[in-house]
Amino acid sequence: MEFVEGSGRMVRENEIRKAEVSALPSTTDAGLIFIGRVRTPWTSRMETPRQGRADGPLCRIEVFEPWVAALADLEQYERIEVLYWLHLSRRDLVLQSPANDGTSRGTFSLRSPARPNPIGTAIAHLVSIEGAIVRVRGLDCLDGTPLLDLKPDRELFTPIAPPQPGDFQVGDPSLSPSFPR
Amino acid sequence: MEFVEGSGRMVRENEIRKAEVSALPSTTDAGLIFIGRVRTPWTSRMETPRQGRADGPLCRIEVFEPWVAALADLEQYERIEVLYWLHLSRRDLVLQSPANDGTSRGTFSLRSPARPNPIGTAIAHLVSIEGAIVRVRGLDCLDGTPLLDLKPDRELFTPIAPPQPGDFQVGDPSLSPSFPR
Repeated sequence: MEFVEGSGRMVRENEIRKAEVSALPSTTDAGLIFIGRVRTPWTSRMETPRQGRADGPLCRIEVFEPWVAALADLEQYERIEVLYWLHLSRRDLVLQSPANDGTSRGTFSLRSPARPNPIGTAIAHLVSIEGAIVRVRGLDCLDGTPLLDLKPDRELFTPIAPPQPGDFQVGDPSLSPSFPR
Repeated sequence: MEFVEGSGRMVRENEIRKAEVSALPSTTDAGLIFIGRVRTPWTSRMETPRQGRADGPLCRIEVFEPWVAALADLEQYERIEVLYWLHLSRRDLVLQSPANDGTSRGTFSLRSPARPNPIGTAIAHLVSIEGAIVRVRGLDCLDGTPLLDLKPDRELFTPIAPPQPGDFQVGDPSLSPSFPR
């Protein structure tokens, strides 16, 4: 692991800015598979929305085989959670300077694409599902972004599996006597 | 890639059930790093809540170095999005039978931990941040679950970086003439 402080030179895409601090991980702990691709109108990071909007442009999610059958029953949800891999993002910034004004903020206090595990999450409005194609509004990622997952919006989903003890547990004390405070 | 249909034998944790369909991916496309660990009261998958609740038990998120400094400024958000790696989940199920009743649903229509990229997302209520320890309520994962990311709840976050053209774009036509419908 190595720490680097930003030089403050011209910054628009992946350069490091003055007041930013970086850490470079050298190994990975788990592997992801790309299960599809997100098609949006945005082909440059200078155009993409900072945040998606429910009345934004129609976007297409193309699901790859063998995962097309896993779309069954998703059409009943008005909103879906979309997880995607921000494949062009740098992953080493601990502190970032979003306004590039010499001040910095912790990476976890931002929804910037630059993060140790650059996973984007969005709540998208479902328009249609036809075969392998899911049409939605509300995304904010680049055209060609790899897809990681789709799930019903947590606010619309009721578990089908029977409840478990933890579902009824509130406040403290915790179930496990060894649980560290 | 290989397809397998479930046998319907005794099923509680990772076994495949009757009416379930599996696909086994053989490669990975991107790597994750574990940036911390989630401590919860639940040490068995038979106990964990199906869904976290805002008044649930206190849980502790332990952030590893060098990412502790990235927690700066997160304390201003009442709710945070927590991403974690469901390390014990099987990843091959295309169709699942949550009630184990012979009927099945598409994996993407469920919030089951079994999914091709087993990433859990939760909106947790922030209680405190002290050093490397973030205390929250509202999680539903096993004790020891690897942490992937923390970010402000999207509903509470306003981007600090200046707006881009996509932020103002609504409906259709899309910006890009080559955008496929």
